[in-house]
Amino acid sequence: MSDRYWLGVDLGGTKILTGLFDDDMKLLARNKQPTGAEAGPAGVFGRVIQGVEAVMREAKLEPAQIGGMGFAIPGQIEPGKPVVRFAPNLDWRDVDCQALLPKEWPWPVFLENDVRMGTYGEFAHGAAKGAKHVFGIFVGTGVGGGFILDGELFTGFNGHAGEIGHIVLHWRKGTTLEAIAGRKYQMQRVKAQLEDSPKHLRKSWKGVDPEKVKSSQLAEFYETGDPIAVGIIDDAARALGAAIGSVINLLSPEVVVIGGGVTGALGDSFTERIWDIAQRYALPGAATNVKCVTAALGDDSGIVGAAAFARSKAGAA
Amino acid sequence: MSDRYWLGVDLGGTKILTGLFDDDMKLLARNKQPTGAEAGPAGVFGRVIQGVEAVMREAKLEPAQIGGMGFAIPGQIEPGKPVVRFAPNLDWRDVDCQALLPKEWPWPVFLENDVRMGTYGEFAHGAAKGAKHVFGIFVGTGVGGGFILDGELFTGFNGHAGEIGHIVLHWRKGTTLEAIAGRKYQMQRVKAQLEDSPKHLRKSWKGVDPEKVKSSQLAEFYETGDPIAVGIIDDAARALGAAIGSVINLLSPEVVVIGGGVTGALGDSFTERIWDIAQRYALPGAATNVKCVTAALGDDSGIVGAAAFARSKAGAA
Repeated sequence: MSDRYWLGVDLGGTKILTGLFDDDMKLLARNKQPTGAEAGPAGVFGRVIQGVEAVMREAKLEPAQIGGMGFAIPGQIEPGKPVVRFAPNLDWRDVDCQALLPKEWPWPVFLENDVRMGTYGEFAHGAAKGAKHVFGIFVGTGVGGGFILDGELFTGFNGHAGEIGHIVLHWRKGTTLEAIAGRKYQMQRVKAQLEDSPKHLRKSWKGVDPEKVKSSQLAEFYETGDPIAVGIIDDAARALGAAIGSVINLLSPEVVVIGGGVTGALGDSFTERIWDIAQRYALPGAATNVKCVTAALGDDSGIVGAAAFARSKAGAA
Repeated sequence: MSDRYWLGVDLGGTKILTGLFDDDMKLLARNKQPTGAEAGPAGVFGRVIQGVEAVMREAKLEPAQIGGMGFAIPGQIEPGKPVVRFAPNLDWRDVDCQALLPKEWPWPVFLENDVRMGTYGEFAHGAAKGAKHVFGIFVGTGVGGGFILDGELFTGFNGHAGEIGHIVLHWRKGTTLEAIAGRKYQMQRVKAQLEDSPKHLRKSWKGVDPEKVKSSQLAEFYETGDPIAVGIIDDAARALGAAIGSVINLLSPEVVVIGGGVTGALGDSFTERIWDIAQRYALPGAATNVKCVTAALGDDSGIVGAAAFARSKAGAA
């Protein structure tokens, strides 16, 4: 039945994921390329093009069969323009993507921030499917988020709506959510605490580089009751709970989706714990019938979201 | 040119304001009634009806000339229903307004929370006129807010979106914005601080009941440099700044409108100070071209907003 196909490209700091989907958002082909950000925008775009060509070849499709492409960017997009304003992990500033995309591609390309695309993916085909107002929060190196309001991605006046990592959780100190629940800060904390810890506590961390600890490893430490990991995860849950409680009162979403590395590693128990805390902050009635769920699409949320976003935009045009 | 007229009713804890507007939102007649909440919903509705009849008589209009009525309620509305879920200042729970309104009124009645209506008023005909995404924050007994997104009032899944007073500003203690910047808590603080203060500081407050201090009086104390008033207003500005900074990052509004008693009494210098703090928390680029303004409609924001809201709803129908 499908006569139009959709491309979803998720540009990350280290890898580029490309997916080709049919009109029912079934994944037909998938490709992974290294980002190679050190080669600059032109080099990165060369690999984006390779990824797109690879999935088209695999699925045996012609350019005319593509309805559109969603392009998830790890940074801020200039509203209404195909321009990346700032992407810290790529070291990009004011990069005009239009100029770097092949002129011969006949399909429209829709840029959006990667976390916003991930939220769109969970809304369109993941854990929040069927809801009208969705808030997505992704806990990784940083903490980002996105809003679906009335069934559409909401990005606001300056195009960055959803940046929950930068809400203030301590009005005197100015501490933000990301500064408590973001991986970068957590790893700095592991390091500092290891230096101060008695020898028997340090034992389990022997040979582990705190700056390179994976989410899965942190989750393992947590589950064995390691006090450093427990302290970090507990604080993250408390801070995420307070922030989500604030979002419940401020925006009244229908579904909250929590994703990202740590959430994926710890699973539903982490989500439930955060939601338990969030509900304590919610006004009477504000959390009634509201669901808080773990993201379902994992690493594919970006490509699914990008393809679904392109479909909604091109379909509406 | 105007052939349809609009009613705006603002039901407060102590007074009911009613305004009759022409199609250009020019105020033709205005009425004020005591709320008399102690008489219960039926008694209050009796005075609402008196107010409406009074403005219609004054403007010499027939019921058929009324396009609709907006009804601002100091509480939570059941989404999509003419039911007040909870209005603490009136001591109302689950009050069905449909049943209490005269059956012979031929015009549609649109209920909404009073702060949301006030925000709509500032958006439609006040300080935020012309903007697409507006966040309104009103600092009074409590601290409330409202969102205009894409030119429409956004109330969310459970109908309460905008409740900025209940965002968490201290993630460990759970302190909310209202608990720092709301009048109730500020007055408790004045009381506690007066008890602890040396005699010379207490002198200026002599004969003043801290629980009944008006905004204008607090502003006067502040302007004379009274340390208790300065401490309270400074903390309010800092907390409001942190909360608005969070809203900038989370929702990317185009205009932030600050209203309510204290803001009205202290004027633009208070707004500027809050905005100065908010911008420090904003992500790079997030506050670019964003305006923060003092509410322009004062006590009339509710009736203007209610009438304009009715016009937008009835006009769209």
